[in-house]
Amino acid sequence: MATSASGTRTAAPRAQRADARRSVQAILDAAVTCLARDPEASVVDIAAAAGVGRVTLYGHFKTRAELVDAALVRTIERADQVLAATDTAGDPVEALTRLVASSWQIVDQFRNVLLAAQRELPADRIRSVHDRVLRRVRALVERGQRTGAFRTDLPKRWLITTVFSLMHAAAEEAAAGRVKVDQVPGLISATLIAAFTPPGENARTPLG
Amino acid sequence: MATSASGTRTAAPRAQRADARRSVQAILDAAVTCLARDPEASVVDIAAAAGVGRVTLYGHFKTRAELVDAALVRTIERADQVLAATDTAGDPVEALTRLVASSWQIVDQFRNVLLAAQRELPADRIRSVHDRVLRRVRALVERGQRTGAFRTDLPKRWLITTVFSLMHAAAEEAAAGRVKVDQVPGLISATLIAAFTPPGENARTPLG
Repeated sequence: MATSASGTRTAAPRAQRADARRSVQAILDAAVTCLARDPEASVVDIAAAAGVGRVTLYGHFKTRAELVDAALVRTIERADQVLAATDTAGDPVEALTRLVASSWQIVDQFRNVLLAAQRELPADRIRSVHDRVLRRVRALVERGQRTGAFRTDLPKRWLITTVFSLMHAAAEEAAAGRVKVDQVPGLISATLIAAFTPPGENARTPLG
Repeated sequence: MATSASGTRTAAPRAQRADARRSVQAILDAAVTCLARDPEASVVDIAAAAGVGRVTLYGHFKTRAELVDAALVRTIERADQVLAATDTAGDPVEALTRLVASSWQIVDQFRNVLLAAQRELPADRIRSVHDRVLRRVRALVERGQRTGAFRTDLPKRWLITTVFSLMHAAAEEAAAGRVKVDQVPGLISATLIAAFTPPGENARTPLG
């Protein structure tokens, strides 16, 4: 066994550090999965799902709040990556369709982890991370309203709320097995495109 | 003090029973209000909100589950009354507008109490009461699809989910002070009417 005090046996500590990193990854993956399913998930549930003992978990995360914060950061990083990789330029209706298809799952996961975080973490911490995910949807809705592609008789904020609300509702239907996962993006897009059509204009049909 | 064994002094027991009924009413009102705000609300919170002691509360409801069940029944009775009093005949778009205006608040309250109930009560109990509230919305969506007023390219079930989802989202916005309560029905109706318009047709503008 390696001793951390010895500089002559670095291979074993390095292996230990690699082990620790794998544990942390497993714990974070399990935390995101468990909290997305149940925002009340306990540290014991998460340790079990990660296949590590409670002592190991508490070795990496001193409190449930610390773990929830780390799970939130991880979810946001993923959501950011997905949203950044989505082309939201060009025709706003087509951009909205692409955004829904690429991100409904990660946005829904984010929402549930956020719900867990809201019970543990301070409000300003929540607000700052929430804004990061909201930003791209907000920018698209703003552009759609500005260019006349989306209705302007309803406030921008409500249109953004509608996007997130329908993503979440459809994700719940899919999780309950009432809708097939591959039908979800189509349901959300078809509903949003019609809902956002300026009054008196023909609703466009969603893309393929 | 009256003794319940005596037939000659009924006034005092009757007064006691009236007191008990008032306690039960106060506890149920408090339970609905507290659970609608926070599905995790404890028996202690509810007793405090009702202005009764914990012992009094447990005298009427032996467990939190019993209390949650009674609160759920009360919410459903109210929702049923409101929905039954709403005219959902005639033009489906106008009927939907009336339904939203009369019931978004009670439907939202119901949803949160239901969330509390889902953690305490058996699934078949939940399903039977949930169906009662769903029924009228389902009937209206069915009629709208049958008569061609609402789109048929999306499943009936998804349109119903959209109704409840947007009612809830708007209620949350109002609760957070981001939307004025008197604007809520208009936001929901305008969004639903457009969302339900058959593809290729002109979206109708909401009433009033």
